[in-house]
Amino acid sequence: MNLQQAQNKFKELNEKLRSYAYVGSIASFDMSTQAPAKGKAAAAKNLSLISAEAFSIRTGEEMKNTLEVLCENKDKLDEVTAKEVELLSEELEKSRKIPKELFREYREHISISGNVWQEAKEKSDFAMFAPYLEKTIDYKKQLAAITKPEMTILDAWLDDFEPETKTEELDAFFSVVREKTVPLLAKIQKEGKPVREDFVSRHYPKEIQRQVAHKLLEMFKFDLNAGLLAESAHPFATTITHGDVRLTTKFHEDNILAAIGSTIHEGGHGIYNQNAQLSPIVGNTGLAFGTSSAIHESQSRFCENMIGMSETFWQYFYPTLQEYFKEQLSDVSADEFHRALNVTKPSFIRIEADELTYNLHIMVRFEVEKLLAEGNVPINELPKIWNDKYTEYLGVTPPNDKLGILQDIHFSAGLFGYFPTYSLGNAYAAQMLHVMKKTVDIDATIKSRDLAPIVSWLNENVHKYGRLKKAKELIMDISGEPLNPKYLTDYLEQKFTKLYFL
Amino acid sequence: MNLQQAQNKFKELNEKLRSYAYVGSIASFDMSTQAPAKGKAAAAKNLSLISAEAFSIRTGEEMKNTLEVLCENKDKLDEVTAKEVELLSEELEKSRKIPKELFREYREHISISGNVWQEAKEKSDFAMFAPYLEKTIDYKKQLAAITKPEMTILDAWLDDFEPETKTEELDAFFSVVREKTVPLLAKIQKEGKPVREDFVSRHYPKEIQRQVAHKLLEMFKFDLNAGLLAESAHPFATTITHGDVRLTTKFHEDNILAAIGSTIHEGGHGIYNQNAQLSPIVGNTGLAFGTSSAIHESQSRFCENMIGMSETFWQYFYPTLQEYFKEQLSDVSADEFHRALNVTKPSFIRIEADELTYNLHIMVRFEVEKLLAEGNVPINELPKIWNDKYTEYLGVTPPNDKLGILQDIHFSAGLFGYFPTYSLGNAYAAQMLHVMKKTVDIDATIKSRDLAPIVSWLNENVHKYGRLKKAKELIMDISGEPLNPKYLTDYLEQKFTKLYFL
Repeated sequence: MNLQQAQNKFKELNEKLRSYAYVGSIASFDMSTQAPAKGKAAAAKNLSLISAEAFSIRTGEEMKNTLEVLCENKDKLDEVTAKEVELLSEELEKSRKIPKELFREYREHISISGNVWQEAKEKSDFAMFAPYLEKTIDYKKQLAAITKPEMTILDAWLDDFEPETKTEELDAFFSVVREKTVPLLAKIQKEGKPVREDFVSRHYPKEIQRQVAHKLLEMFKFDLNAGLLAESAHPFATTITHGDVRLTTKFHEDNILAAIGSTIHEGGHGIYNQNAQLSPIVGNTGLAFGTSSAIHESQSRFCENMIGMSETFWQYFYPTLQEYFKEQLSDVSADEFHRALNVTKPSFIRIEADELTYNLHIMVRFEVEKLLAEGNVPINELPKIWNDKYTEYLGVTPPNDKLGILQDIHFSAGLFGYFPTYSLGNAYAAQMLHVMKKTVDIDATIKSRDLAPIVSWLNENVHKYGRLKKAKELIMDISGEPLNPKYLTDYLEQKFTKLYFL
Repeated sequence: MNLQQAQNKFKELNEKLRSYAYVGSIASFDMSTQAPAKGKAAAAKNLSLISAEAFSIRTGEEMKNTLEVLCENKDKLDEVTAKEVELLSEELEKSRKIPKELFREYREHISISGNVWQEAKEKSDFAMFAPYLEKTIDYKKQLAAITKPEMTILDAWLDDFEPETKTEELDAFFSVVREKTVPLLAKIQKEGKPVREDFVSRHYPKEIQRQVAHKLLEMFKFDLNAGLLAESAHPFATTITHGDVRLTTKFHEDNILAAIGSTIHEGGHGIYNQNAQLSPIVGNTGLAFGTSSAIHESQSRFCENMIGMSETFWQYFYPTLQEYFKEQLSDVSADEFHRALNVTKPSFIRIEADELTYNLHIMVRFEVEKLLAEGNVPINELPKIWNDKYTEYLGVTPPNDKLGILQDIHFSAGLFGYFPTYSLGNAYAAQMLHVMKKTVDIDATIKSRDLAPIVSWLNENVHKYGRLKKAKELIMDISGEPLNPKYLTDYLEQKFTKLYFL
């Protein structure tokens, strides 16, 4: 195979893989949003067969040979193709290290583990889940040792989701977060101005909430002709294909706040995906996606927290919301609404946590994962360890395993190392906000009711590069320094001090 | 490959094909119901690549070799597997006769032809479409000569959609239809009792129509836990996978009647698909689908026309409908509603045609296709021929090509021979009704508000056999005679005489 042939073959294989990605994502989206109950078993089986087909194209001999030729000629490739080749080669090399039989065993185990977790969670019975978790830890350690023998177990797990992130960085990161957030939260609990919340749970019809959600997505420049908003139990954003990025949200008729935050959050993921697709640099290539979980989260959190839950935003958007809910919000001021949206309260459940306490939930999980990686703790002590950490950092003690260690799907799915990306996303967002403020007058932009300057900044600095720049490179290019948790803690301190003490 | 190996391989290939069928149908369904405009081009391209992958599995060497071994051992296979092997072998043999290059050329031509047709229809300009139609006819003649050299061109075209159907049968069929329907329609036009229609176009909110549609589907035993109802420009029914059959309908807020007919119609297709999936005979096999287009149409028409638009049905269902639309229907009687639902009027557009005139629309098309197959008519005379036939049979003359020969997609897509299956479906349905009445008291069943005996009859006589029996075998087993148009014309005469003259 000469270079030209390899380039053609690479193009052909990528087109095929994009088609498989399309049908895979459309089927997954369908399963999460509307598939009827009785069809789900067959759908899941079909989808796993199709995924296996895609996997064998992605990791097969044809791809391997093609990538070899391209790697040998890397200097003759354009920047984007070179990066595509690099990322695919890395992935291929990693997956080739894993013995097929081990991987098959692991996948089967994970599928069973997921079912056991679900039942254990319902019964709030960690002991039932413990042996499966133990086995998962064992598999994940084996996989880490095989694929990344040069790293510690925890570094390898972290690297799976946020490449090149090290345990020591996260230790330093969370120590700053802990030092600043724990006392601030305690002070708010003790002395903060009370927040009015009676109106939150009035009746807010779903159909009107849906109109508000569409309005919000438009404000954040999500293109509804190149995507759509559906509903699902757990909100998410997903790229279906070029020109089609889908979001889901969840409407609670007895809670006006839930859908607002989740819609803007998924919208933030959505514009990252849409703009990457249209990028003059990476559009229409295998790089037209988010570069890492944390950077993706930074875009959703930026839109949700830094803009969508800011005081200025609600000064200007609240009258619009009041028009949709004339009756329900007639006796509520913009300030009251904004404060209710940002209320901070220690709680047991991560996915319902507010902006200030969220990182503490993640810190608990990171510390637990560290213990799992080090393996010095008997498995049956984990619930107590979990609960003790909640008591220490958040001041609340989960009364049972369901509200404690069994709440998240991640451990049951072997997703060790994923949790920290949520907090890293918050920190990246705060650091971007700090830089953005130097050239964009954020309050004036919101006041103008056209968020274009803000979204353009995100596009120019983040979205348009897709996967071309890795997270660490991106933040260095943007801010001239590596990730620094200070921006996050400063931002939170300022925001929550103003909310609760001014 | 020994027999056991071949059986295993056959199972494996079929599972793979089912997975491709699943992702293909879920993607098509998505495109018809909700995909955003800007994503459609990429989606279509992706889907055609996935279809090509499935096609190459279906017609590849592995399948061919497997089928050969199974064919040699046909006597050792169970009835269902033997039938699957037979049907796939036939399909494979047919597709192998077609030169790949010719097929590729034809597919490309059809794709362009579809776009030209759309534009020509908008502009109501047949001359623009004519050269493409001519080329399509040419291709279709070539394909017929290659795949079915033993048949006439028109027989080959008919056989593509309704196997073993001959031109002479259809000539005889339509001659009976013409003889009975044309004078009846003329008489109704002249002397029939007027039908009250003022209430039809009152405002009927979509959300309430959707509730009625679900209610109707439940009545016809469509399992909404094993399927769902969505919306699309052109209603359809499709099998997604085992346990998932989807229907679409279209709600017009200014027309209460449209969604009622189309929902029950698609529901009729839907229960055929659902029951075939659950069949103790063909469930979970490649035969768990409808056996032919005409038989599928017989099930939808039976539910829609014979039951859902019958006088008895509305005597008992109308009070329920009135509860949904208290205001809109307060001054309308059950009889007035039923008569409006069944109003017959000559019109230009097939898809809006009523039960009596529908077959005349099909007859025009069948006669035109005959001329295309025989090739004795200059292409530019077709619009006039079309319009003349409308004048003769329906008494109305289309004023332009858009309302005339350009109205349907079929010619542009090369679907010659498809139209007659619609009328054959009506005839099969009427013949089944005749037989069903011998053992099921239809009026009493409707009166009981539980349609189980009717749906069970359809299941026991049609659904549960899936593709195991071909259409002709099925109707012979059911009625002891071949398809006889008399049952249809008798049924129509009785129904419309009662509607308009009693």
